[in-house]
Amino acid sequence: MGNGRTGAPPRAAVVGTGLIGGSVLLRLRQAGLDVAAWDPDPATRALARDRGLTSPDGIEQAVADRDVVFLCGPLPTLTATLTQVAAIARPDCVLTDVGSTKRAVATFAVAHGLADRFVPGHPMAGTERAGLASASPDLFTGAAWVLCPDPAGIGRFRTLAALLLEVFRARVVPMDPVAHDRVVALSSHVPHLLAGGLAGAVDASPVRDAVLSLAAGSFRDGTRVAGTPAPRTANMLLDNRDEVLGQLDAVRAALDELATALRRDDRAALVAGYERAATARAALAAGRSRPVRADFPLDADPAGEVAWLCELGAAGGHLTGCRVTGGVVGYDGLCPA
Amino acid sequence: MGNGRTGAPPRAAVVGTGLIGGSVLLRLRQAGLDVAAWDPDPATRALARDRGLTSPDGIEQAVADRDVVFLCGPLPTLTATLTQVAAIARPDCVLTDVGSTKRAVATFAVAHGLADRFVPGHPMAGTERAGLASASPDLFTGAAWVLCPDPAGIGRFRTLAALLLEVFRARVVPMDPVAHDRVVALSSHVPHLLAGGLAGAVDASPVRDAVLSLAAGSFRDGTRVAGTPAPRTANMLLDNRDEVLGQLDAVRAALDELATALRRDDRAALVAGYERAATARAALAAGRSRPVRADFPLDADPAGEVAWLCELGAAGGHLTGCRVTGGVVGYDGLCPA
Repeated sequence: MGNGRTGAPPRAAVVGTGLIGGSVLLRLRQAGLDVAAWDPDPATRALARDRGLTSPDGIEQAVADRDVVFLCGPLPTLTATLTQVAAIARPDCVLTDVGSTKRAVATFAVAHGLADRFVPGHPMAGTERAGLASASPDLFTGAAWVLCPDPAGIGRFRTLAALLLEVFRARVVPMDPVAHDRVVALSSHVPHLLAGGLAGAVDASPVRDAVLSLAAGSFRDGTRVAGTPAPRTANMLLDNRDEVLGQLDAVRAALDELATALRRDDRAALVAGYERAATARAALAAGRSRPVRADFPLDADPAGEVAWLCELGAAGGHLTGCRVTGGVVGYDGLCPA
Repeated sequence: MGNGRTGAPPRAAVVGTGLIGGSVLLRLRQAGLDVAAWDPDPATRALARDRGLTSPDGIEQAVADRDVVFLCGPLPTLTATLTQVAAIARPDCVLTDVGSTKRAVATFAVAHGLADRFVPGHPMAGTERAGLASASPDLFTGAAWVLCPDPAGIGRFRTLAALLLEVFRARVVPMDPVAHDRVVALSSHVPHLLAGGLAGAVDASPVRDAVLSLAAGSFRDGTRVAGTPAPRTANMLLDNRDEVLGQLDAVRAALDELATALRRDDRAALVAGYERAATARAALAAGRSRPVRADFPLDADPAGEVAWLCELGAAGGHLTGCRVTGGVVGYDGLCPA
């Protein structure tokens, strides 16, 4: 990716510099890019400047004349910020976000004529901490980073995918926004509900202090994300409500199966249930993959390119390369074997 | 603790040298104690000998003439091994176990006249791995290690508590067997059920591979213990069935509250629920504590000593010292402030 007009490295901006935006910012700077930061909180802007980062007081100064802008504010502010930044940024600027749901913002972008400029994104990384002070330039290394390709903005998708691969060393996962929301409901949002239910039950328990005293690995692991700032978790769940409730039903059904086997003293069924669970867990650690490759002429209808990309992501694959040469875009990827 | 007859350091044995027993064994050796190991599996005995440990082929040679024996085999074999070892070991030998439930084995010991020789125990540490090859002498450092004091065997309790504090640097938590089983149902067994339900639902999901591809912290953490060997998890749950099902109902109720708030788009209730959950989680990380101290004459009725100990554990406290001098046992401990 380059500055379209000069061939120089892209000039970037990050709007909203909490944990995720701050980590994007630090990584872009570490990679040597010219990057400007803006946050609505003056203290956060001052902290950024203390760290030697460019952080003007006005959002206009931060995003005007930039090649790519990462929108990293809280989920409820996202559509307003997108509208505001789209009005300030150059028409050829790539706009993207890092929100934990994608259907709502993608629908908004289409409805407001921004689908050609905005590429919905979601890096699958984070911690239970918050704020620029907790940010790290390495947060996304090796992490999945979902991007939602749209035929109207396929050029921006390619540019951004190349940047994420090169600068962030992320696994870029192309995915349809609706598929994304279903998948993260199960991979992230329902786990947050389980952690909240477990930690909440302990807080209300007559044996609370003894439970905390005996808490070992399974409890510490199972409740870690319950320490996430509560408003952040609430925003995420509410924005994906229907998918989360649907996937929670699926998890409850699996839990009921285990509980029924336990109630009936059915050791064989319990062992079989845990063996299935261990299969999924083992696949997480050591999934084999095969390389995939596809080329698309830049002057073809991008519908085929978008379909191939979304199928790759839905199959559990990700991109490892994206290169435009001689009127053709070539994608390299890995897919579960 | 010393060899009662000579004042020399205690001679120990470990029966069953998988992950937990192997870690007990390695720690005892590291501390310079004379320790013998026995496992029913000849290959495990050979592995122990390869590592320079004493591991005779017969259990009799391993446990005869020892001052303390740790019973660390699988839960279903525990009562048979206790009976067998009690018949071989010296009458003044301290017998203890490391099983993840305590009511059943404590009841067995009382019914079989072994309450004066056997101190039920449960170190709250472990990993999802198994076997002597995964053992580590540092597994228990700083971990909670539950011991169940019984008036009939209070002398053995004191001896063992002092050994665990000195050699293992564990937080010794005295607890009634019934209270222990209720507490670990919530701190450990229900988390194993939730992890199994989540991983099982993913394994059965049409979007399985995409979920695994996007799995970040909350999913990895929330399913880690689903990778535990399935028979080990099944034994643990079945042995504590009624308490596990009872505490699962409590967690389901807390989960239902969160799900209801989500279904109703009730942001305030959702935030409040997660703030309660974060309270418990924060207490886990940074609970303050106050020192406690109690002395008991050795010739008094031990019922008062046992009651004080069990109250300490039920309140979330643990022992930091146990010393017998001049006809008095003195306990130091820490209790949540």
